Amino acid sequence: MPNRNLKLCGLNSFFDPQSIAVIGSLKEGYFGGYVVVKTLLKAGFAGGIYPVNPSYREVLGQKVYASIKEIPEKIDLALIIIGCRAVPGVLRECGEKGIRAVVVVSDGFAERDEEGTELQREMVEIARQAGIRIIGPNTAGIANPTKGFIPNPYEIGYEKVKEGPIAICAQTGMINPQAFPYGDLHYGVSKICDFGNKADVDECDMMEYLESDPATKVIALYLESIKDGQRFLKVSKRVTSKKPVLILKSGRTEQGAHISASHTGSLALNDRIFDAACKQSGIIRLESFRELFELPKIFAYQPLPKGNRLGIITFTGAVGVLAIDEGAKYGLSVPLLSPRTRKILDAIFPGLGKRIVDIGPPMAVVNDYMSIYYEILKTVTVDPCIDSIFNVIWTGSSGEFMEEYLKIYRGLQGNRKPIASWIYGPRVHYINEMTCQMEDLGFPVFPDIEMAIKALGTASQYAKTKGGNR
Amino acid sequence: MPNRNLKLCGLNSFFDPQSIAVIGSLKEGYFGGYVVVKTLLKAGFAGGIYPVNPSYREVLGQKVYASIKEIPEKIDLALIIIGCRAVPGVLRECGEKGIRAVVVVSDGFAERDEEGTELQREMVEIARQAGIRIIGPNTAGIANPTKGFIPNPYEIGYEKVKEGPIAICAQTGMINPQAFPYGDLHYGVSKICDFGNKADVDECDMMEYLESDPATKVIALYLESIKDGQRFLKVSKRVTSKKPVLILKSGRTEQGAHISASHTGSLALNDRIFDAACKQSGIIRLESFRELFELPKIFAYQPLPKGNRLGIITFTGAVGVLAIDEGAKYGLSVPLLSPRTRKILDAIFPGLGKRIVDIGPPMAVVNDYMSIYYEILKTVTVDPCIDSIFNVIWTGSSGEFMEEYLKIYRGLQGNRKPIASWIYGPRVHYINEMTCQMEDLGFPVFPDIEMAIKALGTASQYAKTKGGNR
Repeated sequence: MPNRNLKLCGLNSFFDPQSIAVIGSLKEGYFGGYVVVKTLLKAGFAGGIYPVNPSYREVLGQKVYASIKEIPEKIDLALIIIGCRAVPGVLRECGEKGIRAVVVVSDGFAERDEEGTELQREMVEIARQAGIRIIGPNTAGIANPTKGFIPNPYEIGYEKVKEGPIAICAQTGMINPQAFPYGDLHYGVSKICDFGNKADVDECDMMEYLESDPATKVIALYLESIKDGQRFLKVSKRVTSKKPVLILKSGRTEQGAHISASHTGSLALNDRIFDAACKQSGIIRLESFRELFELPKIFAYQPLPKGNRLGIITFTGAVGVLAIDEGAKYGLSVPLLSPRTRKILDAIFPGLGKRIVDIGPPMAVVNDYMSIYYEILKTVTVDPCIDSIFNVIWTGSSGEFMEEYLKIYRGLQGNRKPIASWIYGPRVHYINEMTCQMEDLGFPVFPDIEMAIKALGTASQYAKTKGGNR
Repeated sequence: MPNRNLKLCGLNSFFDPQSIAVIGSLKEGYFGGYVVVKTLLKAGFAGGIYPVNPSYREVLGQKVYASIKEIPEKIDLALIIIGCRAVPGVLRECGEKGIRAVVVVSDGFAERDEEGTELQREMVEIARQAGIRIIGPNTAGIANPTKGFIPNPYEIGYEKVKEGPIAICAQTGMINPQAFPYGDLHYGVSKICDFGNKADVDECDMMEYLESDPATKVIALYLESIKDGQRFLKVSKRVTSKKPVLILKSGRTEQGAHISASHTGSLALNDRIFDAACKQSGIIRLESFRELFELPKIFAYQPLPKGNRLGIITFTGAVGVLAIDEGAKYGLSVPLLSPRTRKILDAIFPGLGKRIVDIGPPMAVVNDYMSIYYEILKTVTVDPCIDSIFNVIWTGSSGEFMEEYLKIYRGLQGNRKPIASWIYGPRVHYINEMTCQMEDLGFPVFPDIEMAIKALGTASQYAKTKGGNR
């Protein structure tokens, strides 16, 4: 484990640098140093930007330096996007300049061939000697939306990533801004990190950094391999006791693991061992790529449930049945509502439900539907017999309830029980609009019934792990 | 099994009536007979529309009849939306009028209480005597988009449902137009049917009807119960030998089954028995509500694969690894591409891939990216070593490739191997736009990597079942 010696500096220089050197092509285009500088400027990064390229004198109004040594100021972070064979030399210069954090975007290392593997080894050796920490190589890089710090090497097509409590890190560039519509999201992100080949900085380093990052409330990871199993167990156990850690792990099958080894040059882990490790350390395991971006929302924006008792507000019995089936996977049970709640519901409309609250029947016949809806929500959300709420919303055929819905949900902000919503209706436009508005209010909306239930179920499991057995 | 005697007429009168009587409230509003008439007119239904209500003389330009008997023409189908206690009487009148198909939208039957259960029994008895078939009660009804026949009792907010080869039937109104955005879809539907309480017409009747319905190529079902296990086995085995049948079954858990019994008054089936039945009869089992609307697309619009060998075209290795892992669940394997393909790919760009074709690396550096993309697709789709293709598309940051993509995919229409696509990128707008365009060309796009793979995997399994062991 030679990389452990590299731990000379924390990761703060990566995510909160006062100055960044961008070493690579400054040609206008879709990829490269030019894009990094442009995206940093657009995102409003306040630190110093120092493009390095002997062929340019200025780019986008920024002075360009012929080499790293020529930069007069102190540099916290260097981002390298040059041919792989030139990387070791530049890395040495970084060391001489006193730079202690380097993102190597360049590919052609362990993921490619023997020569690349050797090159990666050389690079790590240089970094160790110089006390440099590396993210990458073969990475799409990092981001810290809070600081407008989006040094993305690919064109992204938008300016800002909304800041918020979710950190997303992965062994792939599929989580970086050019691949995911952060600009269109209604929830916020604290840090983004593509580990690339994980030659140095890995999942454990990142978990440790995020553990004490005040901007991060929940950590979502996509991994194909674990670099150090023992350390992973120790670190993840400690981190999950403070913040929920959600992991999507691929390379689960033999062929998947084999292919994974060839694309990032890393060794995959036996899946059963990993699964056991997750259970032991309280990690929440994800099952689809989309969950990586969806499930963290419940932890980021809603309180943890105090138990496993699920309340269901639906417009149709079938969704209630689906929710109960799904909830059972996570140990959720759907109890009888309190006598008080049942009495109130019955007074509102006979047969509204004793367990599942089905708004469908009154909706079809009652005129002042929204006042009923408000009463129902108000009553159910405070029922002492339930710990979390799966909330189904029907948009109406022309978004006619939107304003009233939002007024009601604004009144529910600050509720003490997590609410996960699923929205449906006959027009995509109104579903999307209602989803955005709800998430802007801090109520996470999930694209599937099953995912909403998984959110509440894993939140309940996590709360139990964190709080000890009840 | 008294209902078996009801099989006096086929279901054709339900889905292709020349005339419909609409019995219920004609008050303008969100729900009821008024909405049915309005929606039929808007959708361009060419048959006769006969509203029945003693308090009206005309509605929406249509003559209203005081009773069913007064209608001078022959009526193929009646749709009843009145208080449950009045249903038996009206049903008798329907019988006297010679109507043989009735949709009972009214609720308050077996799903409500003992009285309703008795009422339902009485209704079925009347129907049996009169040779009437019933869909419902407690149903949101049916639709046949091919005929502009959308007698929906709830306001839907759009006019047309695109006609196409997918039939969607369920024990819930969640599949009816007021609950699902059929009007915004880019794939077509042949029939929609909410069974409601399944007092008469059930999943087997519907499968038998759809078996010989030329407009239907694939059948998607949501069920909470099976009315007759023996018949279900027999019918589904025969139907799946002709058309794929996909079923989402809830009431899987004890609590789910219990609740299900209370909301449609039907008895749920032990889930393990059902699972065995699916395996035996070749039914494809679904796992989420969304799959009900997504998975049929591969069967509707793409050819069946000739084997289980999966080809992967991706922009990033991670998605390839996820696809391999997921494919293993369905027996898909990712083979080495043919020597010819590998040679061509290598000539296009060294390291494009021998198994997974990863367009990411060349995309970042090659200028004429689209011509490469075309060559790659052209080569991979005809590779004799693969039977189906998982195709990842990156939209670009500003939809800049859309036109060229579409030109290329237009050239791939009529390909002999199924292609399932997943689209990603940094802007929701372009992802949605590209998805619509692709589906308009007949290339199904799935919202998740995992669902795209499941589509190809179940298609491969179905092809194998249908073609016998290879």
